[in-house]
Amino acid sequence: MMSGIGHANPLTAYDLAELRRRRSVKWREHPGDVLPVWVAEMDTPLAPPIAEALTAAVARGDTGYAEPGALPEAFAGFAARRFGWRPDPASVRLVPDVMTGIVEVLRHVTGPGGQVVVNTPAYPPYFSWIPKIGRRLVPSPLALTAQGYRLDLSDLERRFAGGAEAFLLCSPHNPTGLVFTDEELLAVAELAGRHGVRVISDEIHGPLVYPGTRFVPFATVDGTAAERSITVTSASKAWNLAGLKAAVTVYGPGAGAELAMVDDEISEFSGLFGVIASEAAFSEGEPWLDDLLAGLDANRRLLGDLLAEHLPEVGYQPPQATYLAWLDLRALGLGDDPAEWFLRRGGVALYAGPMFGPGGAGHARFNFATAPEVLTEAVRRMAAALRV
Amino acid sequence: MMSGIGHANPLTAYDLAELRRRRSVKWREHPGDVLPVWVAEMDTPLAPPIAEALTAAVARGDTGYAEPGALPEAFAGFAARRFGWRPDPASVRLVPDVMTGIVEVLRHVTGPGGQVVVNTPAYPPYFSWIPKIGRRLVPSPLALTAQGYRLDLSDLERRFAGGAEAFLLCSPHNPTGLVFTDEELLAVAELAGRHGVRVISDEIHGPLVYPGTRFVPFATVDGTAAERSITVTSASKAWNLAGLKAAVTVYGPGAGAELAMVDDEISEFSGLFGVIASEAAFSEGEPWLDDLLAGLDANRRLLGDLLAEHLPEVGYQPPQATYLAWLDLRALGLGDDPAEWFLRRGGVALYAGPMFGPGGAGHARFNFATAPEVLTEAVRRMAAALRV
Repeated sequence: MMSGIGHANPLTAYDLAELRRRRSVKWREHPGDVLPVWVAEMDTPLAPPIAEALTAAVARGDTGYAEPGALPEAFAGFAARRFGWRPDPASVRLVPDVMTGIVEVLRHVTGPGGQVVVNTPAYPPYFSWIPKIGRRLVPSPLALTAQGYRLDLSDLERRFAGGAEAFLLCSPHNPTGLVFTDEELLAVAELAGRHGVRVISDEIHGPLVYPGTRFVPFATVDGTAAERSITVTSASKAWNLAGLKAAVTVYGPGAGAELAMVDDEISEFSGLFGVIASEAAFSEGEPWLDDLLAGLDANRRLLGDLLAEHLPEVGYQPPQATYLAWLDLRALGLGDDPAEWFLRRGGVALYAGPMFGPGGAGHARFNFATAPEVLTEAVRRMAAALRV
Repeated sequence: MMSGIGHANPLTAYDLAELRRRRSVKWREHPGDVLPVWVAEMDTPLAPPIAEALTAAVARGDTGYAEPGALPEAFAGFAARRFGWRPDPASVRLVPDVMTGIVEVLRHVTGPGGQVVVNTPAYPPYFSWIPKIGRRLVPSPLALTAQGYRLDLSDLERRFAGGAEAFLLCSPHNPTGLVFTDEELLAVAELAGRHGVRVISDEIHGPLVYPGTRFVPFATVDGTAAERSITVTSASKAWNLAGLKAAVTVYGPGAGAELAMVDDEISEFSGLFGVIASEAAFSEGEPWLDDLLAGLDANRRLLGDLLAEHLPEVGYQPPQATYLAWLDLRALGLGDDPAEWFLRRGGVALYAGPMFGPGGAGHARFNFATAPEVLTEAVRRMAAALRV
């Protein structure tokens, strides 16, 4: 490890040899000569307060069943400091992960066959889980403008008027990195309120917003739709804790007290180390998060420079949030799934665009939460593969 | 910590002050003056190979998404050495925990409203989850004989003939600590085969069988019912890893290849630290397990001695497996829920008998996976409360 403490860039702490010893999906899905830039894991060490809390838990043998402890208060404190949002800690519930939280909420706020609107392209598990629980995913494509993707309010209104029961908002948006403005979210709340559509806001990337952009939690917007909303979020993306299994649902004051009870049945399936790590992240993890964001901000610019130099045909709009770049590779003429081509020919594992549903063909998602050297090598491999 | 390495008793490593710093449900559910002997967590340190593997994972920042890695091979090796069972590692799938594995399997092998037979008294979550997924729990009471509980094959046959679709066998049995014999399991397999009942065998307590008793995995019994069975098990009870979220389902050679696919959808909800810890447990955790079993064996005898001396009216059959004692407290005249009484009057938290369904009234479950001093103090408190 080169460094990992203080005001260092967490993205430069490990070298490739160290990362290849990892046991997580990112580093085990492909053979050892492939550079993985697909799934949303970061190549960083743990933030020091998290590593300390987990090391102490190992020493205590503290590996029994999870319970929320001070996680609701820790999240509420973070939301207040970071976003000016002050949820009542009693409305913050522990769930194992964001997708499980969404699934449980959808089971309760929609009926069998109910329509769930999703902005596409979209996080791939939405497409498997919404049908799996007997609901219908209704795509509402983001509009593609000269300035990049934008929320298409008129399309949303059409879907809401068409009988939608819920809108699964992904904010900030994965995979485009779009951060919705106060005005956009207010318009969503107005439309949802008018059509009686319940809003579930997946805000897992909320802490990962770059300087110059303001993240607005949907629950802080005016209107009954925001009051009735349920936010699902986690420390898992910003502090890289996906494998430890903890997330929270936050019930708006008008969401219905009986509804929050549903999570108590699934909170026992959460991971205790996830709770311990998330508490440390939300309470003491902001200095590290700021260092991380500085490193990611440099990487999103580096990626732009590298693409401009080596792959100028690739469409890339630097994300306003997240460490995920949504690349438009259609001009390369590699078909619907360029990721498959780059894996086979370039030894680079991107996340396949078609998995993100409508609007995903010809695209791929590139995770730049890695060392600048790895990022550079990945783009170099992509360019070299095209030259062969 | 007094000790925790080598041939020491893992149950004597921590004192109460150290245990009260834990964040798990056992130590946080009640006020600090209550002695918790309810939920199935153990008051032990982690086995050294597990602590080492987790400490290394923290240092690597290895907290991304879980994947099974070498867990199937590690479990298959353990099953072969310990039980003479040689499942094909390809039939061993990762799931987040035993209850989630059971739920997913039941969703696929039974239809809506399908009858699922369970021996009662039974593990409390069976009673909430089976109805929650739209199936019907059909109790088949264990027979209570002068020698303790026994499987009631004639009652089982009646339930199977009454249209049961599945039998959720809990083996070894929680809360009675009963270990079923080869002959009993062969008879179950014969009945299940004759009536077309699918057997799901919850063997989470399988590693916790005391000297003098042989644990027989249901999958090793002759007959098509065993071949079609699905075993669900975990390192979480024997090595105290409930909060890390990893378990396995093992599909019999006749279970249907398509069925094993169902788990791949939920394996992503498992915890990576659970996988890493379980692999270490199954591969290198047997010396520690043997030390643990020696300590637990002493405790189950100590509990008998203490009850005979201080609470001779309490019915207690030392379990053949598990660290759970199923106490018959009916002679004390404390009503249906003596645990509630002992919590309020004695400052001891037992697991309430009525939660275990039919046969649970007047009973309570006592977890003796703790230091002899804590066990002694818990019985002393119970006896003292009765004298007031």
